[in-house]
Amino acid sequence: MNLPETTIERLSLYRRVLLSYKYFEKPYVFSHDLARAIKVKPVQVRKDLMLIGFTGSTSNGYSVVKLIEQIDKSLKFRNVQKVALVGLSTIGGATELYLGSDENAFDIVACFLMHEETRSVKMDYPVYGIEKIPEIVKDQEITIAVLAMPPEFAQNICDILIMSGIKAILNLCSTILEVPENILVKDIDFITYLEKMSFLSNPNVKR
Amino acid sequence: MNLPETTIERLSLYRRVLLSYKYFEKPYVFSHDLARAIKVKPVQVRKDLMLIGFTGSTSNGYSVVKLIEQIDKSLKFRNVQKVALVGLSTIGGATELYLGSDENAFDIVACFLMHEETRSVKMDYPVYGIEKIPEIVKDQEITIAVLAMPPEFAQNICDILIMSGIKAILNLCSTILEVPENILVKDIDFITYLEKMSFLSNPNVKR
Repeated sequence: MNLPETTIERLSLYRRVLLSYKYFEKPYVFSHDLARAIKVKPVQVRKDLMLIGFTGSTSNGYSVVKLIEQIDKSLKFRNVQKVALVGLSTIGGATELYLGSDENAFDIVACFLMHEETRSVKMDYPVYGIEKIPEIVKDQEITIAVLAMPPEFAQNICDILIMSGIKAILNLCSTILEVPENILVKDIDFITYLEKMSFLSNPNVKR
Repeated sequence: MNLPETTIERLSLYRRVLLSYKYFEKPYVFSHDLARAIKVKPVQVRKDLMLIGFTGSTSNGYSVVKLIEQIDKSLKFRNVQKVALVGLSTIGGATELYLGSDENAFDIVACFLMHEETRSVKMDYPVYGIEKIPEIVKDQEITIAVLAMPPEFAQNICDILIMSGIKAILNLCSTILEVPENILVKDIDFITYLEKMSFLSNPNVKR
């Protein structure tokens, strides 16, 4: 199934909303409930669910349990990929707080740190020195890396990750990485986002 | 000037590339240099620079110094907005490492933390308890907040930030915030990005 990337993103969001309904007494939702929760139009919800072949009765709403199952099946969410956090422990500590749910469709299994001194940080997953990347990534079949380090080290570590078998990188380094065509990269460039906000929220700029 | 948001993002990226050229002996660049650095087509660079009224000689390349000046002027980059990091110190520690340049078009001036125990963390800017938000945001005229905390606290703190005068929020909480129309929000939803990567990099998914 070749789903559009924006649909994949919305399915991930619907799924998280649905998980919060799961333990309610009447676990049914309407398209407008899901739409309101993630701020899209109800027709968008119905289109997305049609794309994954979900047909719920619209008069009684969708079964929350069945809809979660269908999204999981469509996005292979039961076949979770393994994730490594790579870089300074600080970002690891932060992400751990918001990403540590068992119900997410990925599994953080390791953290690799740059500096000796940061290795003392307490984490929920094993912490290794950066030199262990090739060994651990291969052994554990880790496919996704969150890369968070000063830009001058990023390309070098990125190359090592890819040689070790990483297929997708969430890049938080505010630098542009050179990667082969078959590697997925999503850039989260905090500097660009903040500079854009700085411009757009400037009271001297008429919009 | 009503620049498209994607142009604003690219101008921020060009500017960072240009800053790295500034101390070269011959600070001139061609549109294809900038294009290669941020992975767009040269015609895109020329269009963006036309939009901000920059006309360089294309045979000798653009003057790096003049182009930085023109971008700064167009995006009011000399009139920097103040930023507060709000939430656990870990994300503050991480962002500080990559955002701490004097040349960025924003200025991180405060960090607000949730828990007593995290206040001991060493930072480059003053650290306050969350209850100081109204006072400090007003006094210092802070307009932008980076919000990083567990989702269950996010909306409450978001409301306090807006009441205190914040105009733009970079939301790292993996939850959707309700805000008035005049407030800018950029969502960086790590869970969605990682779930999407988990699906797209799954070897069992044919694409």
